[in-house]
Amino acid sequence: MRVLGVDPGLTRCGVGVVEGVAGRPLTMIGVGVVRTPADAELSRRLLAVEQGIEAWLDEHRPEFVAVERVFSQHNVRTVMGTAQASAVAMLCAARRGIPVALHTPSEVKAAVTGSGRADKAQVGAMVTRLLRLAAPPKPADAADALALAICHIWRAPAQNRLQQAVALHTTHATKGRTA
Amino acid sequence: MRVLGVDPGLTRCGVGVVEGVAGRPLTMIGVGVVRTPADAELSRRLLAVEQGIEAWLDEHRPEFVAVERVFSQHNVRTVMGTAQASAVAMLCAARRGIPVALHTPSEVKAAVTGSGRADKAQVGAMVTRLLRLAAPPKPADAADALALAICHIWRAPAQNRLQQAVALHTTHATKGRTA
Repeated sequence: MRVLGVDPGLTRCGVGVVEGVAGRPLTMIGVGVVRTPADAELSRRLLAVEQGIEAWLDEHRPEFVAVERVFSQHNVRTVMGTAQASAVAMLCAARRGIPVALHTPSEVKAAVTGSGRADKAQVGAMVTRLLRLAAPPKPADAADALALAICHIWRAPAQNRLQQAVALHTTHATKGRTA
Repeated sequence: MRVLGVDPGLTRCGVGVVEGVAGRPLTMIGVGVVRTPADAELSRRLLAVEQGIEAWLDEHRPEFVAVERVFSQHNVRTVMGTAQASAVAMLCAARRGIPVALHTPSEVKAAVTGSGRADKAQVGAMVTRLLRLAAPPKPADAADALALAICHIWRAPAQNRLQQAVALHTTHATKGRTA
């Protein structure tokens, strides 16, 4: 199973691709950050995020996209941009019929460290260990994206297959309606 | 000048196209609502919003897109969906090099009624009068989308022309970087 994890953001959108199945060693396929200039217009920044995500989907062809679930109780100034960047990532996946899963930050932390309240350093350390990397991926957004992908792979495989079937079915139904 | 106004939302996304220039009678070209089912997955809903907005852009070829600026102090449960639907609308416009303007609800109300605190009925009544319609557009989201477009047309024309030039320039620059 190949999963693209996305830690959404306008300034830095973390992206990481992990391959593997639950109970077996995992492999990092790629990791990076899509950046957009803070002084650009919002619509141009969203376009740049789209182009970045599309490039990752083109190159790595993931079967699932796992996006961090955004909560509105976060920092009010940044949460809107995060919500909008996450919308772009979800949209790019949905257009290709790739199922999208949302995981909360505490679900992701609990998956890779055993504690939903782990700090960034602990998440980075576990991502490094689980993917057998030489050093923690930088910046933290990139490590978080990999943690999201790992979290997703470790979900119940049956649930993932069901979601994949539903997503493909819905894509065809939607296409039929708008044609 | 032809403007597509978008009142963003996942359940009901109001869309309205108005043509005209400041100081002259305005013409409504089209009005409607893009709806997505509340029980669908978020990524599929965003995809449906994109398909709806794309259809309106294809049919009406606006020179500007005016989107309501979303504030996080609104109802916390709905604001994330509104922010994400607005991201999709902005993205669709940016992909085509169409400049996007954001106007706050009070700017729009002040533009069409003279008061930033006007209620929905007052906005609907003024939209009906300004566009010489037989009855107020329903639902309110559709009337709000038309009000957004009117608000945009009444901005300083020089400012609009400048934004259009910048948007086109940026599109070409962005394309160059990613090619």
